[in-house]
Amino acid sequence: MFEVHVLRLGHRVSRDQRISSHVALVARAHGADGVIFSGQYDQRLLRSVREVVARWGGPFSVSYVADWRRKIKELKGQNFFVLVSTMYGINLPDAIAEIREVTETRGLLIIVGSEKMPPDVYELGDMNVAVTNQPSSEVAVLGIMLDWIFGGLELSKEFKDARLRIIPQRKGKNVIGS
Amino acid sequence: MFEVHVLRLGHRVSRDQRISSHVALVARAHGADGVIFSGQYDQRLLRSVREVVARWGGPFSVSYVADWRRKIKELKGQNFFVLVSTMYGINLPDAIAEIREVTETRGLLIIVGSEKMPPDVYELGDMNVAVTNQPSSEVAVLGIMLDWIFGGLELSKEFKDARLRIIPQRKGKNVIGS
Repeated sequence: MFEVHVLRLGHRVSRDQRISSHVALVARAHGADGVIFSGQYDQRLLRSVREVVARWGGPFSVSYVADWRRKIKELKGQNFFVLVSTMYGINLPDAIAEIREVTETRGLLIIVGSEKMPPDVYELGDMNVAVTNQPSSEVAVLGIMLDWIFGGLELSKEFKDARLRIIPQRKGKNVIGS
Repeated sequence: MFEVHVLRLGHRVSRDQRISSHVALVARAHGADGVIFSGQYDQRLLRSVREVVARWGGPFSVSYVADWRRKIKELKGQNFFVLVSTMYGINLPDAIAEIREVTETRGLLIIVGSEKMPPDVYELGDMNVAVTNQPSSEVAVLGIMLDWIFGGLELSKEFKDARLRIIPQRKGKNVIGS
């Protein structure tokens, strides 16, 4: 199976903690292999995501890079296809066939920006992809992209070494573990 | 076509502006007919979402209710099915058939909570639904629910009276209008 990583650009400690945390949780829940944060270094954010992995299972890697350009180039050198998530890109229904084909043999890096994307990201990327071409949320866009890429199968993924597990209920709450 | 509305509970002006805004944008972009905010009244939030509708098109209703219990009961009286979004609920793949069947003849209200859901929400709802039963983001969960409910067709929805429109590009940016 190909590897999928999510690169979150431009994190700001003061403003983005919640959204960046959501990006990471969505990456994990929807089948990506890891998240790479860039922008301001945020130990609290890294720790909180790693705690989720420890409690709810993995594998899921959580890392930080200062030099994201180098990281992108490094992954391209490892034959990763680089998809930039932006509302200006090709709408997912028109992009999905190519993404699925490419990822049969190559890894996938999905770049998720913050308020403003540095312009050279687009030069480094292979393809800009949108979900709806409407103002939306980078968090939901990431979730829907991953859901389409994995064909919904990731919704039933089992995580390893989970200390906590939910038994789904029509009403009420049933959690096993501690 | 059945109506779908999203009720965002427990908004806090100081903490939730961005996430609540994302909830509304995702509701609009993914085919819901409107968002109803509850919790603290937040004029700036209402205005910013209405501005998006004015620029990018609609129809999409944006409202605030102080008494959300009454609103839920009112919509139930109008034959709405009430789905509560929670990680403890039935996982979407196991719930989707029933949701699709129910919404052939009934409206749908999707309740999206904030940090903590008031316990009586669950009593008022018809069904708790999860997306993955893993820690995730309420924003992505909403987007994926709507995407499954509308079968992905909402990704190509045309909005009326849009002043701005994006022409999708593999690289670069092309926006028509002003």
